[in-house]
Amino acid sequence: MKKNQARLRVRYAETDQMGVVYYANYLVWMEVGRVEYCKAFDFDYRNMEIEDGVMLAVAEARCRYSFPARFDDEVVVETWVSEATTRMVTFAYEMKLAADGRKLAAGETRHVFCGRDLKPCRMPEKYREKFGLKPAAAKPAPAE
Amino acid sequence: MKKNQARLRVRYAETDQMGVVYYANYLVWMEVGRVEYCKAFDFDYRNMEIEDGVMLAVAEARCRYSFPARFDDEVVVETWVSEATTRMVTFAYEMKLAADGRKLAAGETRHVFCGRDLKPCRMPEKYREKFGLKPAAAKPAPAE
Amino acid sequence: MKKNQARLRVRYAETDQMGVVYYANYLVWMEVGRVEYCKAFDFDYRNMEIEDGVMLAVAEARCRYSFPARFDDEVVVETWVSEATTRMVTFAYEMKLAADGRKLAAGETRHVFCGRDLKPCRMPEKYREKFGLKPAAAKPAPAE
Amino acid sequence: MKKNQARLRVRYAETDQMGVVYYANYLVWMEVGRVEYCKAFDFDYRNMEIEDGVMLAVAEARCRYSFPARFDDEVVVETWVSEATTRMVTFAYEMKLAADGRKLAAGETRHVFCGRDLKPCRMPEKYREKFGLKPAAAKPAPAE
Repeated sequence: MKKNQARLRVRYAETDQMGVVYYANYLVWMEVGRVEYCKAFDFDYRNMEIEDGVMLAVAEARCRYSFPARFDDEVVVETWVSEATTRMVTFAYEMKLAADGRKLAAGETRHVFCGRDLKPCRMPEKYREKFGLKPAAAKPAPAE
Repeated sequence: MKKNQARLRVRYAETDQMGVVYYANYLVWMEVGRVEYCKAFDFDYRNMEIEDGVMLAVAEARCRYSFPARFDDEVVVETWVSEATTRMVTFAYEMKLAADGRKLAAGETRHVFCGRDLKPCRMPEKYREKFGLKPAAAKPAPAE
Repeated sequence: MKKNQARLRVRYAETDQMGVVYYANYLVWMEVGRVEYCKAFDFDYRNMEIEDGVMLAVAEARCRYSFPARFDDEVVVETWVSEATTRMVTFAYEMKLAADGRKLAAGETRHVFCGRDLKPCRMPEKYREKFGLKPAAAKPAPAE
Repeated sequence: MKKNQARLRVRYAETDQMGVVYYANYLVWMEVGRVEYCKAFDFDYRNMEIEDGVMLAVAEARCRYSFPARFDDEVVVETWVSEATTRMVTFAYEMKLAADGRKLAAGETRHVFCGRDLKPCRMPEKYREKFGLKPAAAKPAPAE
């Protein structure tokens, strides 16, 4: 299973009055991890949106918080694909302090491929191998 | 089970280039629902932080996305407590379009009571009845 | 000069570790004020984007901070148009605590009309009167 | 005049439905530039908050937008101190595309030193030289 590590620095904007990072921001960090994962394995998400008109709409997101990140901490977001089909992809994440590896949070996001109209569609052929999927059969399924 | 409905209007800031609300913002809306729930049932979260030095740290958050909210939509956040102990509270949420009741998303957040040092603690006595919990016994448990 | 008052409640997400609202969020509140101003005076910004393909791109924003807003404060955002031409509109804002009228911040945002390609354009004819502008002359200027 | 360059990658979360970066996020990037500037010149902001109990409260922020940043763009935030006294510091910023140096935006933020009570105070002695200020005279001014 291929994993990728993205690094980011906690912004003051991301803290709240509890003195730690506000919980919704971990989902933003997951996005950072996801985007860098896709790049690292040569899946250009920006181009898929522009050239293919295909987007990944989030169907579910989940985060378990272990230890609070604080302003100016360097955070490592480890990202991998835990499941993929032609219809959806699930990314998994583990967020750790860069300084000592302390686990901050872990989570998953499940995404469905969709067109510009936000209706579900299949993953464009050319991206399938990136996700360990076989190319579509020569004869398309009749139901499509 | 007591429920509360909070209403909010989708901000332009909350949309992303897909033309819909960015997924992390639903967790911010859950916070809006949670704060208004607490107020509606006379549990003043702001005061608990200031007077009792007790905060609710998020231990887990989860959201399932059904239909995308868009700029200027009016959204209803229905909130209720799905579980409560002296150590933790789980809030559940359903987010719907105010216009036609269409379900946008549903989720849960699980919180643990903690002190200013962010170490777990028990829910202050005076708030227990609000969450349907019995007051603590006269003689405190020795292990505390 | 027509003014409009929008009201909002400070979200926990909007605070930072200084215990007050993070400074960039006042610009989000200006957006809330601006959107409600436009609605109040029957200028439907959402429709202008969808029907006319015309957007207001921000050219400049400025905020002077007087007193810090805190979590759960109710804030009044007073908004008015301080200048308008067929090319641009300047909105001005004053943000106050609803409880006692204490001034929190004041600012301005200057916007230019632009098409979906983000190139500058003129305000659609039908909206001009809303901004106190005369309708265009019958014969359009040759340079357009 | 010392300048520092911070680099960041535009997040999907930072875009809005116009397909470009939402205007308030440039103020977050200014914060990123400011924090890295302070580090580069050995002024540890995090420590000043923790050890000295002194914070920099924003008094004014201003941004002029030239060209829209988009998702995944790499942005350079050039930061310098344009003015400093024992009471306040003004930072200036220029934001450019890393790819071709195209200017995105420019701005300033003016900050006042304040204590944990958010009341104005003087810059702690030990930081003065960092900002090109002379150390305080041996005899403190009587009015203080």
